[in-house]
Amino acid sequence: MKVIKSNGEIEDFRADKLINSLIRSGASIEEAQEITNIIQLKITKPTPTRTIYRLAKNLLKRTNISSSMKYSLKKAMMRLGPSGYPFERFFAKIMQAYGFETEVDIVEEGRCINHEIDVLAFNKNTVVSVECKYHSSAFRASDAKVAMYVYSRFKDLEDKLKKKYHKKRYEGWLVTNTRLTIDAIKFSRCYSFKAMGWRYPEDGGLEKLIEKKKLYPITVLSIKQDSLQKLLKHELVMATDIIRISNEFLENLGLNQRKINQLKKQARALLG
Amino acid sequence: MKVIKSNGEIEDFRADKLINSLIRSGASIEEAQEITNIIQLKITKPTPTRTIYRLAKNLLKRTNISSSMKYSLKKAMMRLGPSGYPFERFFAKIMQAYGFETEVDIVEEGRCINHEIDVLAFNKNTVVSVECKYHSSAFRASDAKVAMYVYSRFKDLEDKLKKKYHKKRYEGWLVTNTRLTIDAIKFSRCYSFKAMGWRYPEDGGLEKLIEKKKLYPITVLSIKQDSLQKLLKHELVMATDIIRISNEFLENLGLNQRKINQLKKQARALLG
Repeated sequence: MKVIKSNGEIEDFRADKLINSLIRSGASIEEAQEITNIIQLKITKPTPTRTIYRLAKNLLKRTNISSSMKYSLKKAMMRLGPSGYPFERFFAKIMQAYGFETEVDIVEEGRCINHEIDVLAFNKNTVVSVECKYHSSAFRASDAKVAMYVYSRFKDLEDKLKKKYHKKRYEGWLVTNTRLTIDAIKFSRCYSFKAMGWRYPEDGGLEKLIEKKKLYPITVLSIKQDSLQKLLKHELVMATDIIRISNEFLENLGLNQRKINQLKKQARALLG
Repeated sequence: MKVIKSNGEIEDFRADKLINSLIRSGASIEEAQEITNIIQLKITKPTPTRTIYRLAKNLLKRTNISSSMKYSLKKAMMRLGPSGYPFERFFAKIMQAYGFETEVDIVEEGRCINHEIDVLAFNKNTVVSVECKYHSSAFRASDAKVAMYVYSRFKDLEDKLKKKYHKKRYEGWLVTNTRLTIDAIKFSRCYSFKAMGWRYPEDGGLEKLIEKKKLYPITVLSIKQDSLQKLLKHELVMATDIIRISNEFLENLGLNQRKINQLKKQARALLG
């Protein structure tokens, strides 16, 4: 069985990759193996990887609704657009779940110019200036130019923020919802600032932070684009927000009772 | 007489601004004053600034063809697109005219990553790493993000280039064909690297470097887009290139004899 990669190359299908990907999304080993067997019987000619993964997702949906939602996590992140703001809000909530207090969308004075900081986060020992880089396509990566400009920003802010929060350690983080290029990673390592993307770093990429505490974005739920945009506008960016928020509020945004019940049920299944 | 600015504001027409702009483009004081008088008689209701400048340009054309071409210089710069390469080639030629040897499109090793350098320029005492930022719209400015990433790049290159060219002083320049934002200017001043844009710095902006030595881009001549793209592809980026290059070469690019004569005549009028 052959697969066609997104860059057009054809290669042998690797069952282990698909199995791992299904397990990562919450399927049991048995489920993952069974789905992979079905796929291998079904696919007879070279098929795009994304078709195979969509097929696998549909099969998983039949057995396990919440796994299927997690399976779409990367794609769900892409729906947190089109602007970068929801992703900034989303990442602030991630930081909160990991014990930070946060401020969003603030301006701080640097040595030479003022800077808009996407998320400024504090815990007992540390103050973190976070630059969020949101892409609405998985094909866009954050490259060395991004790493270089955020580094200049972190350095320009360093002295002033150290003085302002003089008992805390200062860190600058670059966080993106897609890939970091190899040069972006090299640059961040070499200049000792934290860069985080999808599956990077391996032991603490964005998807790990999300999955470990079930901090799923609201976009994993089945919401149509117009309703989604209304929710995002009100800074409802997490799947938990749907459980927390009153039915009245959601009705006022134009969702009907049936849809509200469906969303709350989905969210509970996912988070329970 | 009232004018409508590009942002929609209405303000009083200022004759001195139009006169200065005409003089800057090579009109004599008398020509400039005469054209401005004609305009003031002609315009009776609030009129967009750009309409007035177009009108002035047409009047100037009647009296002085080469002045009118210079008058279009900023606009001509926008036609050096759509990619950034012609502008890089163009700026390398500017540097050459000011006594530098240049290399374009090279890769140099920095402390942490490799960098593509748009123009690397040398004279007896100095090695300059130039980052060219080309915009095809006058409304796009080079902002603080640009200034911040080029600064990181200059710093990452500094030690290696100093070592490689150990008897020379090292400078990093950011050059754009449009505006630099106030923060971009502040940042470059504060970190002591040269930033150059249109009319910035006042005593040595890009338009000054061009006009002082008549280093006009090929795009000031009357060339249609398809022929222009062929010329740019062959790195013919200066108006002088049209005089220098053989008729045979231009014919092979698809220009007919009449057009070639017309272009050479225009270029000679402009540069003579």
